[in-house]
Amino acid sequence: MSTFILLLFALLTPHGPDSGPLPARPGSVSTETQTCIDCHEQYTPGIVEDWKSSRHSRMTPAEGLTRPNLERRVSATRVPAELEGTVVGCFECHSRNAASHADNFEHFGFQINVIVTPADCGTCHPVEAEQYGRGKKAHALDNLEKNPVYSLLVDAIVSMKSAVRGTLQPGKASGNARNETCYACHGTRVGVRGTRTVNTEAGEITVPVLTNWPNTGVGRINPDGSAGSCTSCHARHGFSLELARKPSTCGQCHLEPDVPAYNVYKESKHGNIEESLGHRWTWDAVPWKVGGDFTAPTCAACHNSLLVNAAGGVIAERSHTFDTRLWVRLFGLITSHPQPKSGATHTIKNADGLPLPTTFAGVPAAPFLISPEEQQARRSTMRRVCTACHGPGWVDGHFAKLDTTLSEADGMVLAATGLLAAAWDRKMADRKNPFDEALEQQWVRQWLFYANSVRYGSAMSGPDYVAFKNGWWELTNGLQRMHETVNPARKK
Amino acid sequence: MSTFILLLFALLTPHGPDSGPLPARPGSVSTETQTCIDCHEQYTPGIVEDWKSSRHSRMTPAEGLTRPNLERRVSATRVPAELEGTVVGCFECHSRNAASHADNFEHFGFQINVIVTPADCGTCHPVEAEQYGRGKKAHALDNLEKNPVYSLLVDAIVSMKSAVRGTLQPGKASGNARNETCYACHGTRVGVRGTRTVNTEAGEITVPVLTNWPNTGVGRINPDGSAGSCTSCHARHGFSLELARKPSTCGQCHLEPDVPAYNVYKESKHGNIEESLGHRWTWDAVPWKVGGDFTAPTCAACHNSLLVNAAGGVIAERSHTFDTRLWVRLFGLITSHPQPKSGATHTIKNADGLPLPTTFAGVPAAPFLISPEEQQARRSTMRRVCTACHGPGWVDGHFAKLDTTLSEADGMVLAATGLLAAAWDRKMADRKNPFDEALEQQWVRQWLFYANSVRYGSAMSGPDYVAFKNGWWELTNGLQRMHETVNPARKK
Amino acid sequence: MSTFILLLFALLTPHGPDSGPLPARPGSVSTETQTCIDCHEQYTPGIVEDWKSSRHSRMTPAEGLTRPNLERRVSATRVPAELEGTVVGCFECHSRNAASHADNFEHFGFQINVIVTPADCGTCHPVEAEQYGRGKKAHALDNLEKNPVYSLLVDAIVSMKSAVRGTLQPGKASGNARNETCYACHGTRVGVRGTRTVNTEAGEITVPVLTNWPNTGVGRINPDGSAGSCTSCHARHGFSLELARKPSTCGQCHLEPDVPAYNVYKESKHGNIEESLGHRWTWDAVPWKVGGDFTAPTCAACHNSLLVNAAGGVIAERSHTFDTRLWVRLFGLITSHPQPKSGATHTIKNADGLPLPTTFAGVPAAPFLISPEEQQARRSTMRRVCTACHGPGWVDGHFAKLDTTLSEADGMVLAATGLLAAAWDRKMADRKNPFDEALEQQWVRQWLFYANSVRYGSAMSGPDYVAFKNGWWELTNGLQRMHETVNPARKK
Repeated sequence: MSTFILLLFALLTPHGPDSGPLPARPGSVSTETQTCIDCHEQYTPGIVEDWKSSRHSRMTPAEGLTRPNLERRVSATRVPAELEGTVVGCFECHSRNAASHADNFEHFGFQINVIVTPADCGTCHPVEAEQYGRGKKAHALDNLEKNPVYSLLVDAIVSMKSAVRGTLQPGKASGNARNETCYACHGTRVGVRGTRTVNTEAGEITVPVLTNWPNTGVGRINPDGSAGSCTSCHARHGFSLELARKPSTCGQCHLEPDVPAYNVYKESKHGNIEESLGHRWTWDAVPWKVGGDFTAPTCAACHNSLLVNAAGGVIAERSHTFDTRLWVRLFGLITSHPQPKSGATHTIKNADGLPLPTTFAGVPAAPFLISPEEQQARRSTMRRVCTACHGPGWVDGHFAKLDTTLSEADGMVLAATGLLAAAWDRKMADRKNPFDEALEQQWVRQWLFYANSVRYGSAMSGPDYVAFKNGWWELTNGLQRMHETVNPARKK
Repeated sequence: MSTFILLLFALLTPHGPDSGPLPARPGSVSTETQTCIDCHEQYTPGIVEDWKSSRHSRMTPAEGLTRPNLERRVSATRVPAELEGTVVGCFECHSRNAASHADNFEHFGFQINVIVTPADCGTCHPVEAEQYGRGKKAHALDNLEKNPVYSLLVDAIVSMKSAVRGTLQPGKASGNARNETCYACHGTRVGVRGTRTVNTEAGEITVPVLTNWPNTGVGRINPDGSAGSCTSCHARHGFSLELARKPSTCGQCHLEPDVPAYNVYKESKHGNIEESLGHRWTWDAVPWKVGGDFTAPTCAACHNSLLVNAAGGVIAERSHTFDTRLWVRLFGLITSHPQPKSGATHTIKNADGLPLPTTFAGVPAAPFLISPEEQQARRSTMRRVCTACHGPGWVDGHFAKLDTTLSEADGMVLAATGLLAAAWDRKMADRKNPFDEALEQQWVRQWLFYANSVRYGSAMSGPDYVAFKNGWWELTNGLQRMHETVNPARKK
Repeated sequence: MSTFILLLFALLTPHGPDSGPLPARPGSVSTETQTCIDCHEQYTPGIVEDWKSSRHSRMTPAEGLTRPNLERRVSATRVPAELEGTVVGCFECHSRNAASHADNFEHFGFQINVIVTPADCGTCHPVEAEQYGRGKKAHALDNLEKNPVYSLLVDAIVSMKSAVRGTLQPGKASGNARNETCYACHGTRVGVRGTRTVNTEAGEITVPVLTNWPNTGVGRINPDGSAGSCTSCHARHGFSLELARKPSTCGQCHLEPDVPAYNVYKESKHGNIEESLGHRWTWDAVPWKVGGDFTAPTCAACHNSLLVNAAGGVIAERSHTFDTRLWVRLFGLITSHPQPKSGATHTIKNADGLPLPTTFAGVPAAPFLISPEEQQARRSTMRRVCTACHGPGWVDGHFAKLDTTLSEADGMVLAATGLLAAAWDRKMADRKNPFDEALEQQWVRQWLFYANSVRYGSAMSGPDYVAFKNGWWELTNGLQRMHETVNPARKK
């Protein structure tokens, strides 16, 4: 009889929560975590139930450390002794490194951190934390705040404006407006400003008052001084690999009109297959087997997951910098360019003295960008991912198309910049702030929306984004309107 | 052996049709309904099969009435005796209240209503029908038709235009154009204009001719005089709770560019989790258990479902007015404002004498809007929903951000209104019809598309809608273009 | 015991790969195909695993030929003897008709075609290949390339532009730009330019160099001279019916802003039901049973699948021309019109001598379009599909609304054309190229984006596309702006 039960579970688990080889017995929960659960399953049931569906709730780090190398999700070679033997629960994470946490507070006899940071997750996942810390995501806030060009753009967009006697008067940008727009994805600087007492169903509790909170942006600066937010992708307490690998997770920030990666993906054959047949896939396998576990790539498959072939041979290593398979940066600022060497892009200085990877004329700030050799190496890494499903002719043809597209899109941006420069020279616009007049804002659209759409659409095979949907059609129409504005007398 | 069968069904039913505790035996079908089915499973198989998947096809009202309070889907304390003992089939619904139905007709010996209305559904679901009838949805058609400002806007948009010697000539808006645009969601006034004879596969039949039909708008006026359409959300004959709770149901009407609630949701972490992991949830449980049945809210979870915690304690009551957890109305007309007291918003009079919840300058029509106390009460109700998964610091921080965003978005609308007023004063535009010139239409975009996107994006955490996707970027760029139009001499 | 196992499989298969009655034993694989697999499951595991999930991998043509008529997927009455007894593997498809394939090459001792074409698939699926070959899809490339009006539009959009002394200079359109935009969906002309040697993990191999490759557009001209690409919809080696029937497959090309069929569908009640409840459907049944297998139509259900009712009676025949149920062409060029008789629309000549289905003034090129009788016949065919779920009053009302909408949308286009003609007459624009000035590009938006959205939105019940989302709102606002441009002195 019991063989049937086992058979049933074996057959049914693929439709259940994150599976893989999990111990059948309930994990050993620490006393502290059990105390948390006893209250919180009443007061914040959503969190507790989510956690119960996680591997964290059912495995101890000690068990994780015994797994074969390719299957390991714990990248530490060992973990602190006090963590080894219990499952990874509320207290294990929310009490880490308390001394460095300005958001630590006393809560029913325990010292709790409100925010669990990359530094805390790094206890068991140090490789991921280190990789992430080097990449652009961990620097995403600094890269806006410490880059005066981008700060000017941010403030031009989100500053208050008022009408005084029929003319528009510029105002200031509020912290709130920045936090709800650019910083929502880029991250905020979370501080602590004293405590307050709140009435809850569990009675009065005293909690720290966090500033610029809530926020889950990828470059968040945390109250322990660390940068980043693992929860951006590994969200809320289930830490589901399936969630992290589903395209809509990346799509929260990488979406049209400025970074239409998610939209292009959904329109592509890859996205079409994922949307149609993804319900058959094994989303949480580690390593992730091309063909066996999934039959079309997602964002994670191409850009950061550990991929193996049918024989278990490694096709691509896991990456949490997210750019180890990227040789070129499509996201044009204002043209495409080799990936920057450092995640801290605000440290770049181009030939015009600006902290931008290229000049407005498209000249790359070469010393700050990866070398042609490194570009070639990364291109080869991505090529190996593609050839897991496609022949060499297909892949090389695809790459060649992308090369040409980048050059053409950059050329179209250059034309827009030429028209704007003429308007500046002719005093039809004022170059002091390049972002606050209508013609300048049209110029921003040309590179930030339209040229980017063309680039992403070509890279990931979503042709409507190269054509009518923010692509060549808008590039051309926008240029023509800029031309007619700059040359009002002769329309053509 | 049979325990295995039961086990199998127990394990498999979550993937099957709307489940929950249903009687295993086939329901008792009335003679009349069986006659309907005998023909219609041949001629309209889609309807019949859909109904077979429903609870209606498998439970009698009498059985529904025996359920514990929180699990009940029948809100009547008793139902007419003739309905008690049979499942709820074709005839039970399509023969209700025949005397009041102008669309009633003789059909193979039965008197049938074409349309089943909220008044009919109210036989077993009176609480829902009553709540719905009080809300804005049931008044959605009147709120357009009887409000001269909105009628003017509707007609400005959908009226025919023609070119005569190179100038645009305004024409009339057709009923068809109204029905296919605004009234498709708001509802039409369905009338009956005699009968006609149609040739069908079942032979010649004579049927009533309905006007302004088909339509499933939420404020539809039905041939029995009732207002509303349950089928807008509880569609076609399966009456699936899963369907009603899935976000795309709400998204049919609440979508960009004017009411981007659905789009913002999909971009939010809530939507990301639902899209990625929703296949694991129990979508049709009543009551709906936070954490246990679902791990991220959908539209229904936040706005109208009956929610309980793990212990079965009520977190929020079911609502079919849809505004019991809403203290402020984000949908700006033209600025945000406290929710109106009555669903019949066309009865409002503001300080300018217009039937709008605020003046163009943003002054609320206070007597027609809910009080600060009622606002506070509703805010607390929503706060309880949020705190089922989030700590108080998170929730209060989120609400505070929304408060600031509303004030800033309203300020940006005011700036646009100021520029338009200047244009009117300077005779650059004609204030008689505020919707028919290009500058005025830009002004409409500012509040209807862009400020609304900012508000919804902030309320539901979809930052791109606050930023580049119809948000601050468009608000700013649109204002700048309005400014340059109104002040042609000095561009800046 | 074994009955339980069978029961388990019976219950579980709906969630597995494409099912239906498949032989339990592994299919008989040809020696050649086995050789392919032995290498490729190592080097291109994605392809091989995908194929393993297919019916092709588990059934022989001989078995397919024994199926009852309505269930048959093989439309040939017999297939070549050498193909009959093995499953349909790598070699069976990639070695077909080698003599006519310019892309044939020697590969480890086998003569392999890179591309499998409709002519090759036609070996077993001749009816589908023939139907497809007659339709507009197979002619999609010619219909752009050989139509000088459309070629002019394509090149106006994707030609390079540069700024010289502040004025915009037109450049040439590259083949790459055409391939990455319009031709990505319409298809490219794939040629062969010699061979090259590539280093792969399997050692050095020599492969043909294909030009205009990769491409999977529906009108691709293949190296064997055939037209079309089955893989556009039946993608990558699983040939999943579920994939072909899922709306996102069609949505790769039929999407906003120019052909918003997919977007409208997703917003419609049909799409809402599919997105919410489609996980319960049987997606790969042949024939496809309305109500039993699915409860709301997808693109395929309305436009090309073989549909039956509960009793197995045929509701609509399978079609691979995709227009047998379409009486009118919504896609306005520039107005709606009866479907063209031939898929080769570039052969049309209208009263102005242009290869367009109507004149700019809307006069149809009647000799090239289907007759009123044929229109009526097709309308009746579609009506039968609709009445499988809807009563006659609903369907006739829906069709009547569409008729009116088409007339109104065409009228709004005519107004735009009238304003543009006035601008040409007044020398405010130059009629030589009707696509390269800002006013002309606004005119293109009016018919290609906005009127099309209104038409599709009305046809498929997605009201936001008739209203605010590229619909009447944009039609009206765009006309008003055109009017104010053409009549600068008097704004109104």
